[in-house]
Amino acid sequence: MALAMDKAALMAFLESDFPQAKDDFVVEEVAEGRLTMRLKVTDAHLRPGGTVSGPSMFALADVGIYLAILAMIGPKALAVTTNASLDFMRKPAAGKDMLCEVRVLKLGRVLAVCDALLYSEGQAEPVARANMTYSLPK
Amino acid sequence: MALAMDKAALMAFLESDFPQAKDDFVVEEVAEGRLTMRLKVTDAHLRPGGTVSGPSMFALADVGIYLAILAMIGPKALAVTTNASLDFMRKPAAGKDMLCEVRVLKLGRVLAVCDALLYSEGQAEPVARANMTYSLPK
Amino acid sequence: MALAMDKAALMAFLESDFPQAKDDFVVEEVAEGRLTMRLKVTDAHLRPGGTVSGPSMFALADVGIYLAILAMIGPKALAVTTNASLDFMRKPAAGKDMLCEVRVLKLGRVLAVCDALLYSEGQAEPVARANMTYSLPK
Amino acid sequence: MALAMDKAALMAFLESDFPQAKDDFVVEEVAEGRLTMRLKVTDAHLRPGGTVSGPSMFALADVGIYLAILAMIGPKALAVTTNASLDFMRKPAAGKDMLCEVRVLKLGRVLAVCDALLYSEGQAEPVARANMTYSLPK
Repeated sequence: MALAMDKAALMAFLESDFPQAKDDFVVEEVAEGRLTMRLKVTDAHLRPGGTVSGPSMFALADVGIYLAILAMIGPKALAVTTNASLDFMRKPAAGKDMLCEVRVLKLGRVLAVCDALLYSEGQAEPVARANMTYSLPK
Repeated sequence: MALAMDKAALMAFLESDFPQAKDDFVVEEVAEGRLTMRLKVTDAHLRPGGTVSGPSMFALADVGIYLAILAMIGPKALAVTTNASLDFMRKPAAGKDMLCEVRVLKLGRVLAVCDALLYSEGQAEPVARANMTYSLPK
Repeated sequence: MALAMDKAALMAFLESDFPQAKDDFVVEEVAEGRLTMRLKVTDAHLRPGGTVSGPSMFALADVGIYLAILAMIGPKALAVTTNASLDFMRKPAAGKDMLCEVRVLKLGRVLAVCDALLYSEGQAEPVARANMTYSLPK
Repeated sequence: MALAMDKAALMAFLESDFPQAKDDFVVEEVAEGRLTMRLKVTDAHLRPGGTVSGPSMFALADVGIYLAILAMIGPKALAVTTNASLDFMRKPAAGKDMLCEVRVLKLGRVLAVCDALLYSEGQAEPVARANMTYSLPK
């Protein structure tokens, strides 16, 4: 299966459809069923104590998984998250970007299922684990 | 079991420990094992299409559940979310605040388990469902 | 919305379509969007230590939620579980049946979302919490 | 980190502590943070239609994840599942064993977090995905 959107196409989609997100997120790598997304961590993503907040990690996983699906089916803005589950396992490193490694586990007619591991850049152990289900437009 | 923190104490804690959140969230009601939290929806919480974003709903559930636990155990800033799971069921209404109704299902020595239903104000059917586990400090 | 199946119709469906389950489960109550299911606990449901096993609780929640959906849409054997999440909060009581109280939170064209609390009979505090998503046949 | 229990020690533990499970499950491979478990599928594991039932897949993931943790910490029968989440993605193949590939993502003092992919033997695409959290004994 060829990719429907490459890295440049995904970034252009993000800029046009999610302008408020385009400064936070960068697609690092994309391949069939795989995508790595970077969150450029700024003060806006932190919680008290200086670590990346839960909602920011949720957003990173959600955008990364969304784009991993679009890379395979093309720019369909109507795909919506129906279920999201996250385990927060370790404290993110202060002052480091986060990287989210997505796997597409199922791409069906109606539902897509993906999971992801989230890392503080430069660290071997994952900070968080996420899985999400998306409902796909007809 | 008496409440360790009432509505005023919870709002004071939010203002001192989460100053960036204090303009977004209001504790509407609190009782033993129950709390209702309001998200004052502004443009910052919206996603393309004008509905409340997933990360904003995650934040609403997370803050509401956190304060429901603190209402019972007192102001311990070290409680951390270890697991969060959300089902997004309906589109939030545009231009409406959201209300999050939390239940504390278990308050153990080490873990607390809660769930919540999220509503657009004035609508009978829930927009989303959340459950979260918190690890409690010793 | 009237019920498509009452208690007797649900039990008849269970006996015809899930004969291996009919001795374990009893529909106690059913109403619009609500159902209570009993697991008649026998040695087959126990794990070492004498408490009800995780797979038995999973089965109780799955069957209870399935029948709560069928009560509203009629006997469609093709509904399938797509996502299941459980929190195990307390040890089930030894030698007690378990009761599962289901709520239907969303009944859409394609997906149904439900949650449930599981109790050891006669105890006030829930043993487990479950939520499940079902994909509905066309 | 050396393994605390090898394949033979894990199988001996299963036979002594979970005698009802010892005929169903086989540890195929174990390494640091990894384990592959086989479910020897028999009629007892099937649901109407002839595919492996949800509770059987739950049991496979639960036993596989449990033994992956014990392989690292030794035979502590008191570890208990606190959260389990599964996505059922494809129909299991009829008449095939199932294999469960576990990863240990975090092994903390109090909690362990793992995930797993479940396959019908001989098929490339996973049938289900699971993640579980275990509470560890002191």
